[in-house]
Amino acid sequence: MNKKQLIEQIKKKQSFLCIGLDTDIEKIPEHIKKDTDAVFEFNKQIIDSTNKFAVAYKLNTAFYEANGINGWISFEKTVDYINKKYPEIFIIADAKRGDIGNTSNMYAKAFFTHFKCHAVTVAPYMGEDSVNPFLKYKNNWTIILGLTSNKGADDFQFISEPTVYKQVIKKSTEWATSEQLMIVVGATRPQMLQDIRKIAPDYFLLVPGVGAQGGSLSDVAKYGMNSDCGLLVNSSRGIIFADSTENFAETSKQKAQEIQQEMKLLLKSII
Amino acid sequence: MNKKQLIEQIKKKQSFLCIGLDTDIEKIPEHIKKDTDAVFEFNKQIIDSTNKFAVAYKLNTAFYEANGINGWISFEKTVDYINKKYPEIFIIADAKRGDIGNTSNMYAKAFFTHFKCHAVTVAPYMGEDSVNPFLKYKNNWTIILGLTSNKGADDFQFISEPTVYKQVIKKSTEWATSEQLMIVVGATRPQMLQDIRKIAPDYFLLVPGVGAQGGSLSDVAKYGMNSDCGLLVNSSRGIIFADSTENFAETSKQKAQEIQQEMKLLLKSII
Repeated sequence: MNKKQLIEQIKKKQSFLCIGLDTDIEKIPEHIKKDTDAVFEFNKQIIDSTNKFAVAYKLNTAFYEANGINGWISFEKTVDYINKKYPEIFIIADAKRGDIGNTSNMYAKAFFTHFKCHAVTVAPYMGEDSVNPFLKYKNNWTIILGLTSNKGADDFQFISEPTVYKQVIKKSTEWATSEQLMIVVGATRPQMLQDIRKIAPDYFLLVPGVGAQGGSLSDVAKYGMNSDCGLLVNSSRGIIFADSTENFAETSKQKAQEIQQEMKLLLKSII
Repeated sequence: MNKKQLIEQIKKKQSFLCIGLDTDIEKIPEHIKKDTDAVFEFNKQIIDSTNKFAVAYKLNTAFYEANGINGWISFEKTVDYINKKYPEIFIIADAKRGDIGNTSNMYAKAFFTHFKCHAVTVAPYMGEDSVNPFLKYKNNWTIILGLTSNKGADDFQFISEPTVYKQVIKKSTEWATSEQLMIVVGATRPQMLQDIRKIAPDYFLLVPGVGAQGGSLSDVAKYGMNSDCGLLVNSSRGIIFADSTENFAETSKQKAQEIQQEMKLLLKSII
């Protein structure tokens, strides 16, 4: 999916919601747990009930990897399911990978060629040659960590002036255009989006941290939205684990719709 | 495996060699490729032929992940094989994971509980709460990226003074003792090991970059060795892909032994 198509989806659905499939097997409703692939069955129901309100799903690889081989089977089935049934949906592997060149090549191959995700998140610590192998896939997206949403972001991302996170964003915009690079910016520090927009005005930002982590959607839009929208705001737990009864899929739909309605209002200024 | 046991193994084998199982399926000898699990079969033969000369194996997860579910099956079988047949060997998952707390919990569970690795490499960018979930496993090892061996290390690791990589090492030594934390330091900048030893005198360093990447073993020992040895030096391609004929396992044995012989001399001063 290219940038133009993504923007079209956002306008069509009046939504820039990304739903995080952080599917912790222990939090799945009891009646689903009996299924032979409970994680996939849960994801499938969540996707079927929420897809109208979201433009993207983000699969956090850790929650699949924790279940070993069975987890990777659930991961693959989920990606295949979305690609086949909802080809207009943007699929992000939230993997935060990054290693020396020949190793990053393998990670890129894993997520783009093998698993058919549209995008993968990467960690910047090892620099350009750790990111380049992902960028070689011109029809896929690389999403680099800029400013993260967690407390530990203070430890190293704010070193120096300009800060490390600003230097990461600046450099990465030199490596690739906004047609294939996005940047992760946590919703928990929305006012910093103003500075980030000065460095990367036309890049899409993937924004986690709304909901369970405490970030405000309206602040994110206020400081981070550009004329293309330029935002994918992720919510995971607040949608997928809002209800642990047999009615969970319907509740997740309501939660997704509530956010979409809020997004619709925020999008008014640009659409 | 605790620090004392690791040091005992180093003294017993007169080796601080870690062999990197960066098993690229395309580089496996032709006659093995026919095997139903060629990656595992290759690893098994490499392990059987080299284990006397190495104290650790490092499985680079990217090379397994690139083969999808089959790759993770090869990964699991390899770890199980080492654990069962060579319980004195230290097993590192070179995964460079790191994410917000509840996600890092899942990665730690994956590598320590599910796959039974002794150690996992982690990326520092997201700070303390991204590393802590690994450190909760007191009987396992967390190996944090300090100074990496690649060219891209220059992009962000040298920002400010003290540099980002020094601040990463300093902070991480505040998070955990040398009984459960190691630090990745690339062999391609051995003189910097002197400064690192001032910050982390008693920590084990995992040193990639000797061999194919151009680092010198004697320089690494000169600047990085402490009275416990304190080093695990990794070699991957130079050992496992030294020969693509049917004789590959024997050649890898010779290559591993050559390095071990050099290490034996370097260890003389401390044993």
